[in-house]
Amino acid sequence: MKTVDFEKLKSGKKAAMARALAQVERAPDSRETLDLLNAAYQEPQGHVIGITGPPGVGKSTLTNTLIAQWRSMGRTVGVIAVDPSSKRTGGALLGDRTRFTTDPDDQGIYVRSMAARDRLGGLAGLTVSGMVLMRAVYDVVLIETVGVGQSETDIVGVADTVLFCVQPGSGDSLQFIKAGIVEIPHIVAITKADMGAPARRAVADMKGALNLAGRQGADPWDIPVLLLSSMQQKGIKELVDAFDTHLEFLKDNSLLNDARHIQAKQWLEEAVREKFGRVGMGKVEDQLAISAEHSPFERLFDISQEFEKRWS
Amino acid sequence: MKTVDFEKLKSGKKAAMARALAQVERAPDSRETLDLLNAAYQEPQGHVIGITGPPGVGKSTLTNTLIAQWRSMGRTVGVIAVDPSSKRTGGALLGDRTRFTTDPDDQGIYVRSMAARDRLGGLAGLTVSGMVLMRAVYDVVLIETVGVGQSETDIVGVADTVLFCVQPGSGDSLQFIKAGIVEIPHIVAITKADMGAPARRAVADMKGALNLAGRQGADPWDIPVLLLSSMQQKGIKELVDAFDTHLEFLKDNSLLNDARHIQAKQWLEEAVREKFGRVGMGKVEDQLAISAEHSPFERLFDISQEFEKRWS
Repeated sequence: MKTVDFEKLKSGKKAAMARALAQVERAPDSRETLDLLNAAYQEPQGHVIGITGPPGVGKSTLTNTLIAQWRSMGRTVGVIAVDPSSKRTGGALLGDRTRFTTDPDDQGIYVRSMAARDRLGGLAGLTVSGMVLMRAVYDVVLIETVGVGQSETDIVGVADTVLFCVQPGSGDSLQFIKAGIVEIPHIVAITKADMGAPARRAVADMKGALNLAGRQGADPWDIPVLLLSSMQQKGIKELVDAFDTHLEFLKDNSLLNDARHIQAKQWLEEAVREKFGRVGMGKVEDQLAISAEHSPFERLFDISQEFEKRWS
Repeated sequence: MKTVDFEKLKSGKKAAMARALAQVERAPDSRETLDLLNAAYQEPQGHVIGITGPPGVGKSTLTNTLIAQWRSMGRTVGVIAVDPSSKRTGGALLGDRTRFTTDPDDQGIYVRSMAARDRLGGLAGLTVSGMVLMRAVYDVVLIETVGVGQSETDIVGVADTVLFCVQPGSGDSLQFIKAGIVEIPHIVAITKADMGAPARRAVADMKGALNLAGRQGADPWDIPVLLLSSMQQKGIKELVDAFDTHLEFLKDNSLLNDARHIQAKQWLEEAVREKFGRVGMGKVEDQLAISAEHSPFERLFDISQEFEKRWS
């Protein structure tokens, strides 16, 4: 199969992006893939936005609405939809690729689903590579997580701006704090805001949680808490403005490159740790058998001893 | 500090359990700790039950009620409460040790909070060791997770029986399936069931999801979906019966030892992978610097090359 070079990718054609992603998937360790990723990494141009929140909160609907809004503004959009994956079957539970309705002839929008299969390495290994490729091509890269498992905290490691969606009645301030949710977002959206009083209470609860957690006032970025109406036609312009404002904030304070650098460093460390762990596992495969006499604690003890000897 | 031997631990005194846990925490790699864990691993006697579900669903209240119920039946109980931990601060967000109200003079109940700090190695490293120690001493070992992040799926790797708690209005069948929730539990409890119609709808939604996911009918264990009333005084006896029935089911079908063996094997593999990863990281620490010229992809490529050379 022909390899894709960075110039072809930058043309912005969907077919080139599809081929590039296929290449990263097929030959992640090849020199050609490395050259492509290197080039894309060195020319970031888009704003990476992560959307997270519990299942059923309306993330897919919102993503659809945001795509339409950005396209109407002439901005190009790449979407990575991280799908739930089953621990039992090892595959994505639902074929979710069809949940976004986009014009197939529009070259300014590209949607790719990825399985959140492998927890090691944070978001699916391909997510970071895919983000880097899309970031070099599109004005906005939107990453929508499944909102369950660790995807909520992993998104912090890959997005410039994180939106947390929550619907009225999800909990009070203390519960948001206990769940660690308030540490994640740069922007919060209360969805299904046509619920009236419950929606206003949700805003107050979320603001209370952000205050208690020291994410308002103390932080130089005050987290906006926005209301989105049920079909998300209301509030969408304000949300897009909030994304832009956060990006400007990052740039004005020279935080964008720093944050991306830290993210890249963390990704590398996780990738190296995973690489070493996986290869190391292969070296001791025959010492992993557990029995009544050989507890897992004893096996780990023995393997650790041997490891220290080999690396000393 | 004096080390604890297994005979002392088996006396069932709280002080012995506290010292044993402190020792595992302080000297996880010592020969004394290994001997203690080995002995405890070889004499499992309790039923390990995991409780999970989203924040705010009433897990702490339920845990309190279950403790009282079991103690009134004369059963001893060990509790491991896995607390949320902050990625930013590295510590537990709330000091939650006080959320359970137990009689300090009662030697038949021991509660220990642990931080879900370190994702590598599944549940906090200490959780598995602590479970093994408690399992050798108490009739029931209850593990309550924070219900956010990957703790929901990790609990499967450590409990014999998993209870998933959900409250009315949390979602419909499709959303439970999308979130992968239905793959986890052996028992489902709808909390706050005094809500009437919404509670009955929640039961129907959950049963629908379990059916669609093939966890009813096809599976030899039919997952009970129980209603618990607001203060959890109603339904609690049925829940305790359901725990006992599931344990009998596991024993009758010779599944208990197999399942525990698989869990131990998975824990060992994760621990080995983590061990290799962490030590390996140290070997390449000076090659991790990222710059505009040296992308994280290039660094990983170079490190991988070197790794293969060293291990060839």
